[in-house]
Amino acid sequence: MKIGRFMDTDKIFYGVVEGEIVYPIDGDIYGSYRRDATKKYLKDLKILAPSVITKAVCVGVNYKSHSEELNHKLPSEPLLFIKPTSAVINPEEEIIRPSESSRVDYEGELVVVIGKRAKDVDIGNVDNYILGYTCGNDVTARDLQQRDGQWTRAKSFDTFLPFGPFIETELNPDDLSLRTYLNGKVVQETRTSNLIFKVKELVSFISHCMTLFPGDIIMTGTPSGIGPMEAGDIVEVEIEGIGKLRNHVK
Amino acid sequence: MKIGRFMDTDKIFYGVVEGEIVYPIDGDIYGSYRRDATKKYLKDLKILAPSVITKAVCVGVNYKSHSEELNHKLPSEPLLFIKPTSAVINPEEEIIRPSESSRVDYEGELVVVIGKRAKDVDIGNVDNYILGYTCGNDVTARDLQQRDGQWTRAKSFDTFLPFGPFIETELNPDDLSLRTYLNGKVVQETRTSNLIFKVKELVSFISHCMTLFPGDIIMTGTPSGIGPMEAGDIVEVEIEGIGKLRNHVK
Repeated sequence: MKIGRFMDTDKIFYGVVEGEIVYPIDGDIYGSYRRDATKKYLKDLKILAPSVITKAVCVGVNYKSHSEELNHKLPSEPLLFIKPTSAVINPEEEIIRPSESSRVDYEGELVVVIGKRAKDVDIGNVDNYILGYTCGNDVTARDLQQRDGQWTRAKSFDTFLPFGPFIETELNPDDLSLRTYLNGKVVQETRTSNLIFKVKELVSFISHCMTLFPGDIIMTGTPSGIGPMEAGDIVEVEIEGIGKLRNHVK
Repeated sequence: MKIGRFMDTDKIFYGVVEGEIVYPIDGDIYGSYRRDATKKYLKDLKILAPSVITKAVCVGVNYKSHSEELNHKLPSEPLLFIKPTSAVINPEEEIIRPSESSRVDYEGELVVVIGKRAKDVDIGNVDNYILGYTCGNDVTARDLQQRDGQWTRAKSFDTFLPFGPFIETELNPDDLSLRTYLNGKVVQETRTSNLIFKVKELVSFISHCMTLFPGDIIMTGTPSGIGPMEAGDIVEVEIEGIGKLRNHVK
């Protein structure tokens, strides 16, 4: 099932997406809910980032191919950083390249959406805490990342966290095709089977450090093929079984 | 004026603190408000962390003395990391040392509380965006900080973000005494005049990267004297004109 978050004039709501139709949800997507009797059409709605986050916990160098292109040694444990809520933008919105940076890169990623308050969760029990999966773009000011050493600033500018379009709740995340397109051309291509630390390991590991709340997201890392975006570019992240997240670059 | 956030049985409210008396606030501390006609007594209330944050933006190695003890070169620009909302605890509550770490350190710091949505703020205009100042403890798993290289995990465990007790709204932050006590003994001592990047520079710099929201905090960095805490310890951060933040260690 695909769950999205939408705006219709000034009303915000969650809905179940089936093709071009959206069935608004009555209730709590993290608790109990049912489809409303009404139906709406995707084309009439603004698609919002599909969850409201308190934090995005991100994992660095989690594909071997990316560690090689960064010349970064493989980590022995997941390497974490946090992107703030202020960086979130919706599908189709603009990624704004800040004047502080002369190289702003895309990083296509599989995103885990947390469904239930998670603290000290065992690997075997992780599935109970996941609502589903979506696409994300861990936009990064590459020059600032290298200059600072610490990655936070380079990844925390406003508009640097597009994710969506929808949360797929019935999906095995272990071997999905992931592609990033720049102006229609494939620039990153991998399968999630190449993740060094798998989804279940990540959720368990992070939950032993910090409590995760419903709606929080985990960005699982990007494969090789990173590169810069320029004004006017269109960047898309596509994951098998989920769909395509598209954003414009300013 | 000192503003605090309190719990009385199950009701949460802001109040103006004068000595042992708390005057509840009617209205929005970030907008317009007035003192309520009633008064309460500090001794009857639970003191909460004084603001509700969407993020804590922290500054690394911002005292020369601390850069020397860490053997870290002086940064040419502020070095940022983010602590998540899930790490916040209230004054008097317990800092829990996680099993993943064998060395959990205190880091006493001056904390800026944002009063107004701040984006691209000029240094000369920063004062309009600050509600006030409080004390904070940037608790850090020193061994994990060194092992990971990236600082986020080491600083993001639940309970690693005590701040408070109150927000002092009328204070010049440029030359205040800052002391950290471990079991009553002074372990860190400096003046905020030793900050490499000053409060106004920090708020302006960070606001050019990410939008700051009312209640968000900026932790300005810790001086030398860092060291570990053990079970049963009491750690206090005291800043001239603000007061003393006290927490227990488990």
